[in-house]
Amino acid sequence: MGAGRCRVTFLPHGLETEVEEGTDLLQAAARAGVELRSVCGGEGVCGRCTVAVRRGRVAGGEGNLPPEARRQGYVLACRALVQGDVEVEVPPEARVAEPEVLLDRLSRREVLAESHLEGEEAYPREPLVRRLPVELEPPTLIENASDLARLTAQVRRLTGAHEVEVPLGVLRRLPHTLRAGEWTVSVTLQELQPGRLKLLEVEPGASRRPLCGLAVDIGTTTVSTLLLDLETGYTLDRRGTYNRQHRFGADVISRIIHATEVEGGLGQLQAAALETINGLVGQALDRRGLEPGDIRAVVAAGNTTMTHLFLGIPPGWIRLEPYIPAASTLPVVTAGELGLMAHPQAPVVSLPAVASYVGGDIVAGVLVTGVGLSPRTSLFIDIGTNGEMVLGNREWMVACACSAGPCFEGSGVSCGMQAAPGAIQRVEVDPESLEVTVSTVGGEKPLGICGSGLVDLLSKIHRARVIDRAGRLQPVRSPRRRDGEEGPEFVLAWASQGNGRRDIVIRESDVQNLLRAKGAVFAGIRSLLKAADLPPDGVERIFIAGGFGNYLNLRDAINIGLLPDLPPERYRFSGNTSLKGARLALLSRPALEDAHQIARRMTYLELSVGAGFMEEFTSALFIPHTDLGLFPSVKE
Amino acid sequence: MGAGRCRVTFLPHGLETEVEEGTDLLQAAARAGVELRSVCGGEGVCGRCTVAVRRGRVAGGEGNLPPEARRQGYVLACRALVQGDVEVEVPPEARVAEPEVLLDRLSRREVLAESHLEGEEAYPREPLVRRLPVELEPPTLIENASDLARLTAQVRRLTGAHEVEVPLGVLRRLPHTLRAGEWTVSVTLQELQPGRLKLLEVEPGASRRPLCGLAVDIGTTTVSTLLLDLETGYTLDRRGTYNRQHRFGADVISRIIHATEVEGGLGQLQAAALETINGLVGQALDRRGLEPGDIRAVVAAGNTTMTHLFLGIPPGWIRLEPYIPAASTLPVVTAGELGLMAHPQAPVVSLPAVASYVGGDIVAGVLVTGVGLSPRTSLFIDIGTNGEMVLGNREWMVACACSAGPCFEGSGVSCGMQAAPGAIQRVEVDPESLEVTVSTVGGEKPLGICGSGLVDLLSKIHRARVIDRAGRLQPVRSPRRRDGEEGPEFVLAWASQGNGRRDIVIRESDVQNLLRAKGAVFAGIRSLLKAADLPPDGVERIFIAGGFGNYLNLRDAINIGLLPDLPPERYRFSGNTSLKGARLALLSRPALEDAHQIARRMTYLELSVGAGFMEEFTSALFIPHTDLGLFPSVKE
Repeated sequence: MGAGRCRVTFLPHGLETEVEEGTDLLQAAARAGVELRSVCGGEGVCGRCTVAVRRGRVAGGEGNLPPEARRQGYVLACRALVQGDVEVEVPPEARVAEPEVLLDRLSRREVLAESHLEGEEAYPREPLVRRLPVELEPPTLIENASDLARLTAQVRRLTGAHEVEVPLGVLRRLPHTLRAGEWTVSVTLQELQPGRLKLLEVEPGASRRPLCGLAVDIGTTTVSTLLLDLETGYTLDRRGTYNRQHRFGADVISRIIHATEVEGGLGQLQAAALETINGLVGQALDRRGLEPGDIRAVVAAGNTTMTHLFLGIPPGWIRLEPYIPAASTLPVVTAGELGLMAHPQAPVVSLPAVASYVGGDIVAGVLVTGVGLSPRTSLFIDIGTNGEMVLGNREWMVACACSAGPCFEGSGVSCGMQAAPGAIQRVEVDPESLEVTVSTVGGEKPLGICGSGLVDLLSKIHRARVIDRAGRLQPVRSPRRRDGEEGPEFVLAWASQGNGRRDIVIRESDVQNLLRAKGAVFAGIRSLLKAADLPPDGVERIFIAGGFGNYLNLRDAINIGLLPDLPPERYRFSGNTSLKGARLALLSRPALEDAHQIARRMTYLELSVGAGFMEEFTSALFIPHTDLGLFPSVKE
Repeated sequence: MGAGRCRVTFLPHGLETEVEEGTDLLQAAARAGVELRSVCGGEGVCGRCTVAVRRGRVAGGEGNLPPEARRQGYVLACRALVQGDVEVEVPPEARVAEPEVLLDRLSRREVLAESHLEGEEAYPREPLVRRLPVELEPPTLIENASDLARLTAQVRRLTGAHEVEVPLGVLRRLPHTLRAGEWTVSVTLQELQPGRLKLLEVEPGASRRPLCGLAVDIGTTTVSTLLLDLETGYTLDRRGTYNRQHRFGADVISRIIHATEVEGGLGQLQAAALETINGLVGQALDRRGLEPGDIRAVVAAGNTTMTHLFLGIPPGWIRLEPYIPAASTLPVVTAGELGLMAHPQAPVVSLPAVASYVGGDIVAGVLVTGVGLSPRTSLFIDIGTNGEMVLGNREWMVACACSAGPCFEGSGVSCGMQAAPGAIQRVEVDPESLEVTVSTVGGEKPLGICGSGLVDLLSKIHRARVIDRAGRLQPVRSPRRRDGEEGPEFVLAWASQGNGRRDIVIRESDVQNLLRAKGAVFAGIRSLLKAADLPPDGVERIFIAGGFGNYLNLRDAINIGLLPDLPPERYRFSGNTSLKGARLALLSRPALEDAHQIARRMTYLELSVGAGFMEEFTSALFIPHTDLGLFPSVKE
């Protein structure tokens, strides 16, 4: 070991790395392959990356940790600099949750939701690529057409296409392949346009490999993949993980800043996206005993920024007025040129966006929920850091996006966390004693509270009059109601119930953040209704997309004024519609064409134009709303 | 210097290299950047790479060199193994001639020939790529289309195209470019199909760089380039050099064998072709003060094997019955994917071939001479190692190829050499004294005899009765007529007139090789006439293409029976029609389309089918021919 090199060991993983003295523990963890949570991008303010130094010494890292935590060796990994060999324990709440757990839970409601979907069944199975057996006559001195001409003539005959393109890489192998297959081959075809085919691969004889496709949802926080058998439509593998871009910032804006202001930042973000996806693909292929070359088509859906980063396109102007993306319709590239783990010639299709803040993920959702095909007027809502929503039917569609902040994703609230094991998802508050009962994801000791738990919490503490309609903490008589260092707070779980280090509290400032988040979403919905000149009950169906919806209690969401007060039977929880839409476009070319049509048809409503949105927003900063007439069932 | 490393210095260049002990001098020369002639591909049989060791020691390399040459230190570079530091002198006849000299001479007749060309003037100037100034409205919160959508909509408006493709690389730079140009840009467009455009480059503001194109002739022996200003059609630079593939074998067949049987051989040959072209392009750009990115389109013409090697496509089946190329119509690739020194998005178009031995160079020739457009029946002949010929008019065309052997390129004859300084190009033989007068390229001391010189020689020694009609050396009384180690021979120049080492002689075996070569060409012509059912004088025009034609004496060529006995005014010497055709296709898209039509329209006559060709060949092994009725002017 050279001078100044330190060995850092992470427990309970047992993973190790060597770094220069003075390296911070967050970087050391990344090098060791340990993913630590970090919301602020290493700025020392979010406190998510708190770890305990068990052996050895670090410099700094105290941040705003309480003195007893410091005494127990806790430090902020992003601020603690390695001094010699150290051993560090990563507490569960600082760990990035295991993807399998997350997915397993996510999928439950999706399966139920499937039955509500109309779009998918309506499309024919016409995958983006298909395989064709081709038999050729062997050449002679008289019939001496070139290998390529012989093959393309036969493909034209069999398909009726008038043009067949062959990439140079395929042509280079063609002479061997034709002869190895004794003039019988399997050809993988992509239809570029009606009558114009691209020949992605030629294999000798009758191929026995499955013809696979990959659907990818590139979320800001999580990335999910589906490996499909394109010939049967069956799902061969499904998995998800956290987007490795998170180390460059938790939200879209901080990643755009990293891509724009850090030298090589765009490349780092693109590489992180590819690593994330390739990691999932590698696992899926391993499990199924398949090879990268078996994947012959890829469809990716993501928000506009994620799609830009995925393709390495500068996203800088997305966050600057007038908010112009480089592209809304993205070029189809090959897996080879992108560096995606798939057949090098596999087309990689990115679903088109509508605007800087209404991306391909939303187009995918509209596609798969059938909003754009139905005569009934529907509302599609995807709530994350941004709330994106689409209102419309087969005649018209209008979309908008509002910044909800990261509350519903478990950030921006002091004890917030993602919907991982230990996250509080249900809260009961006794109206008399103000005693609190919590239930957590996985039934584990409470470590924090997730987005859907916060909605429940807000509803319950409002009902118990711990907060008033404006979200102010009331002077109730309870040991849980206290004045903390950062103002009034209410204890949900004592340290002794949880990790023993800190009480889990909701602060008045947290409540204000939550009100702003729910207010923005509701104001967005109201703006769409106004733009379409529809009454509040003019919406016949509401699709709630995304992980947030999976644990959401609808009654609570209406009670706090996050969602419109409509009969529960009009609501659908549709799960990961971004991934489902990508899958649908992969399995059905008419669906992909519809996705493009949807993107073109959607009118984007820019909420920052005019005063309408701000008025709606201000009115929505109360529980449930200034205008109680909008919430008749709550009024009761 | 490590143990076993030897320094090898080449004179008169003064170039040096270090090699392992035991390395042969041919390899050492290649490493030092000294190009030695080698026809046999290092087999020790052609004797072309003879060099003199001036200092130090080598092992082996004597080959079949005469004893006095060995005493003077001469060795075959390909067989002489380095033993310690050595200094080697490269005699002029072993050097590859300087390209400028060659080109200067080649161009002379081409300029004259230009006036005979009909094709070029008939085509409109519509270069493969063009530049378009585009002004855009800046985006606003209301008019918030993406950068790409804004640009492509305007390009569609300006051009009437219905589809505009944008490569990912261009899209990545687009946001910066649009803003740097303050919403005015210059766009380089390639029309993929009517109404379908590809956007190769976007530059801020009004570009002031010239829009350049590159025409390339990839010959087996020489490679030539033209750098063109596509907007004016002017030639900015013209140059040529030897194909660096020659170190892997002098002819097409030996290169196919190298590509097929040597591990990595195809890659070496492709790299050598690219190096050769990039070398020329680099010089051209330097001279003109231009950059690779200024070249926005490339058209290459070459024989079928050269085109395969250029694109890295396995050529193995070209030489095996039934002689099937991998492709006759080649995919358009980008300069970037190929590694060609040009704008990475520049399309690289290879002119289409007809068959394994009738390539894009011949299609280029037919295009530029207007054979396929004219009502008059014409014969197009390109004589090299292979003789390729096309007979036809605007109604029909039939093509064939015959193996002429390398005689006319200065090989396959003991004192043969390329048409470089010192090559005998004219021979006079006094019918009485049998004294010989020679004139050489550049007026230098005679070093060997080039292809056109051999035609002249054959004609003159036949007229002087030194050989009979069957090519047998007659027992004439002259000190020049003698029996050498390899049979009867006739001295053309004494060693004292030349390099002082060896007499320049023509052997009976050389004459037999020449008769086979000229017989094959003439038999090919006869076979075409027969296939078209035309009488010998049914050909109204004859185009002689290629460097060989530049020094050819037409009367001699008819006298020996190489070319048909037709009035001289029907003959045209058209120069490098392969390069001219590539230039035409680059400057005129309709011409490129015609090239494809020509390739499709041409009927390929496989001479090895049936006994017709062999009969014609046997009859043509006499001077001028068995049937003197075919040569009325010679008979006189």
